[in-house]
Amino acid sequence: MCLRPEVCRHRKGMVIKMNIILLSGGSGKRLWPLSNDIRSKQFIKIFKKQDGEFESMVQRVYSQIREVDPGATVTIATSKSQVSSIHNQLGEEASVCVEPCRRDTFPAIALASAYLRDVLGIGEEEPVVVCPVDPYVERDYFEAVKKLSDLAAKGESNLALLGMEPTYPSEKYGYVIPEEKSEVSRVVTFREKPDVSTAQEYIRQGALWNGGVFAYRLGYMLLKAAELIDFTDYQDLLSRYDSLTRISFDYAVAEKESDIQVMRFQGKWKDLGTWNTLTEAMEDPCIGKAILNEKCRNVHVVNELDVPVLCMGLKDVVVSASAEGILVSDKEQSSHIKPFVDKISQQVMFADKSWGSFLVLDVEDESMTIKVTLKQGNRMNYHSHERRDEVWTVISGCGQAILDGKEQVIRAGDVVRMNAGCRHTVIARTELRLIEVQLGRDINVHDKIKYDMP
Amino acid sequence: MCLRPEVCRHRKGMVIKMNIILLSGGSGKRLWPLSNDIRSKQFIKIFKKQDGEFESMVQRVYSQIREVDPGATVTIATSKSQVSSIHNQLGEEASVCVEPCRRDTFPAIALASAYLRDVLGIGEEEPVVVCPVDPYVERDYFEAVKKLSDLAAKGESNLALLGMEPTYPSEKYGYVIPEEKSEVSRVVTFREKPDVSTAQEYIRQGALWNGGVFAYRLGYMLLKAAELIDFTDYQDLLSRYDSLTRISFDYAVAEKESDIQVMRFQGKWKDLGTWNTLTEAMEDPCIGKAILNEKCRNVHVVNELDVPVLCMGLKDVVVSASAEGILVSDKEQSSHIKPFVDKISQQVMFADKSWGSFLVLDVEDESMTIKVTLKQGNRMNYHSHERRDEVWTVISGCGQAILDGKEQVIRAGDVVRMNAGCRHTVIARTELRLIEVQLGRDINVHDKIKYDMP
Repeated sequence: MCLRPEVCRHRKGMVIKMNIILLSGGSGKRLWPLSNDIRSKQFIKIFKKQDGEFESMVQRVYSQIREVDPGATVTIATSKSQVSSIHNQLGEEASVCVEPCRRDTFPAIALASAYLRDVLGIGEEEPVVVCPVDPYVERDYFEAVKKLSDLAAKGESNLALLGMEPTYPSEKYGYVIPEEKSEVSRVVTFREKPDVSTAQEYIRQGALWNGGVFAYRLGYMLLKAAELIDFTDYQDLLSRYDSLTRISFDYAVAEKESDIQVMRFQGKWKDLGTWNTLTEAMEDPCIGKAILNEKCRNVHVVNELDVPVLCMGLKDVVVSASAEGILVSDKEQSSHIKPFVDKISQQVMFADKSWGSFLVLDVEDESMTIKVTLKQGNRMNYHSHERRDEVWTVISGCGQAILDGKEQVIRAGDVVRMNAGCRHTVIARTELRLIEVQLGRDINVHDKIKYDMP
Repeated sequence: MCLRPEVCRHRKGMVIKMNIILLSGGSGKRLWPLSNDIRSKQFIKIFKKQDGEFESMVQRVYSQIREVDPGATVTIATSKSQVSSIHNQLGEEASVCVEPCRRDTFPAIALASAYLRDVLGIGEEEPVVVCPVDPYVERDYFEAVKKLSDLAAKGESNLALLGMEPTYPSEKYGYVIPEEKSEVSRVVTFREKPDVSTAQEYIRQGALWNGGVFAYRLGYMLLKAAELIDFTDYQDLLSRYDSLTRISFDYAVAEKESDIQVMRFQGKWKDLGTWNTLTEAMEDPCIGKAILNEKCRNVHVVNELDVPVLCMGLKDVVVSASAEGILVSDKEQSSHIKPFVDKISQQVMFADKSWGSFLVLDVEDESMTIKVTLKQGNRMNYHSHERRDEVWTVISGCGQAILDGKEQVIRAGDVVRMNAGCRHTVIARTELRLIEVQLGRDINVHDKIKYDMP
């Protein structure tokens, strides 16, 4: 008797569901000022949907997967700092495997694989596809991903890769050398990012870009993980995660594996990692308040501020403004912003949280003023500060504040004052907005003691 | 016996003091976003002094005049909206002739001339020079202005102009055709802004640009004023000012006058009316937080925000950011921003006032959050609002709040709540900063009733 009907269906040549791990990493400094230490690039809402609303890369990819395979198990492997954004953007049912700290792709994939087996109950014979969370692609890409999953399910090889048909001799990608030019081929070897002339030679030989998409049967990856890491199950791996060595999947597994197949993908595929490539995917030249005069050519503006951006006579320029700062860059040059952004040291000026969002309005030596938005039904942690007082002025909505255990209803116009040490929270009955003035000599995000709700 | 010793000194060939009227007009939309409806371009602090601090055009011009003629009577003819800025930047002793409304240059000069006679007691025989408030010049310019004043004092003509030696066939200036090429000459005629080829012909004939500087004996201008306007004295003219016809000085007086001398000025002289010309006068490429990568060429940034501007690979571009908005413009194109700025309709987001300053931090449908800074010893008007409540949270300094006649001391951390109708003010003992949250459905600047102090 077969206990795993979906595997049995496969064995009879039937369609089986896809288990997909989306790797969601990076701080996305290359898309500053829209990305910051909290908001990575994949959460920036920049793609216009048919209804005129904007969606992020992660939202776009998630809905594309659901279109191709409505029954797919989608698990997002990410760090703690992104969990709120993922649930905000994908809803609570999105399955998230949280890395306690960053340890590169191999530990992340090992953890997610253990999560699939031990938490989601996926069988070791089942296929799993690992995919970056931020490719800018059309439906045909995830159709190929599905085919790759089906290929892995067959078990003809240990690992199956999606090989991207190269369009130019890029120095940015790793190359996969296949045995033959057929759609599916065994892999001879990998080549790390080459120079242009070597890349040209690879392409002549039929090499493909390694696009970071690969599939395997779950048991294979758990075996590989067990070879390199001493662990029993997901909980055990999770608990020792911070002691793991940083190592990439390519280095730890792919480059050492001799039994690999590659499947060619010829469709459109873009890595929107820089402003230059991101703006190519924008439907309209401007998002947010912006005015371009008639002399502007190939100019894009993404403005999250409430005040307008006026552009006059610019060519091949991207302008982006947020509470973090303002970028004005030649598009070609925009791929080089990272070292400059690394040098900008300031606190995070905005963030979307699971409970709502905040925006820093003003910073002085001994005060900071913030706008806090709590979503309906949500609340802050119950917490206190040691070295600052706070004042809330509610500007819209209503809710219940709890101060040192005492409840009070608050609504637009109400003022609440909390001295240092006062335990406080607010629960939003409706969407609730308040202006929080923090007062003290040493205001910083680490001055926060959390308590259980009273 | 001579009652007017300074005139007598002149008559004996001695140096007499200069009476100078600085015309301070315009809303300066061409320098948006640093200028707004309240802050005109002449008040933007953009010129680096030797001590490293920045000064504005009006400060620069005022100190240049004082250097050339420490005893000069300097009167600034301007509108009510600029009086605070002038006193903030020049101190309380600056003499200001306030136009009740804008009526172009002839009524403004007529009013200022009456002010000189009736308020300051300047004699009708004394010379007066009228000069724009915002030329970007060196000391030699005001030395020439002083010579022009002395020329006017001699009374050889009704009107004496400073003729700027043209450097190119500009279509932007009016031209003055002199009889001869000597330093001082009688004027044959004026020519309005010509096309380039006509301008070339004028220059060949020895024409000069009309730089808007002219001198006369006070009595002459009062006579001209009396011919065109029915008034008795300064107070009378002031009271009927809003009924006057808009007319320029050139049109009302200069073009009709046959008895004019022109004095050539060959020194440097710039009209910093656009971002293009303004940035040429900047000592450093950046004011405020800005980072330019090594690929930037001829880029200037003026950033009044607290967050950084990052520029990558730009050429011939000016970037300016303030609470009003962000300009990114090709320098050449920057002279064309006015019609675009005209279309931006938003409230004023910052202003320097006589008592301090304000900065809008956040605008929502039914609230507005502002940072207010009161200078030591200053106070707000005693006032109330009909349709909004307000909450102050003091973030630094201390002072006395008066609410419906009752005084209370307030300092950093204190919160004051004022319902609609409550009469309120605050007097700053030290410099005082507060966050003001305005709450109501119809928040606007006109909802303000002022009262005498209790």
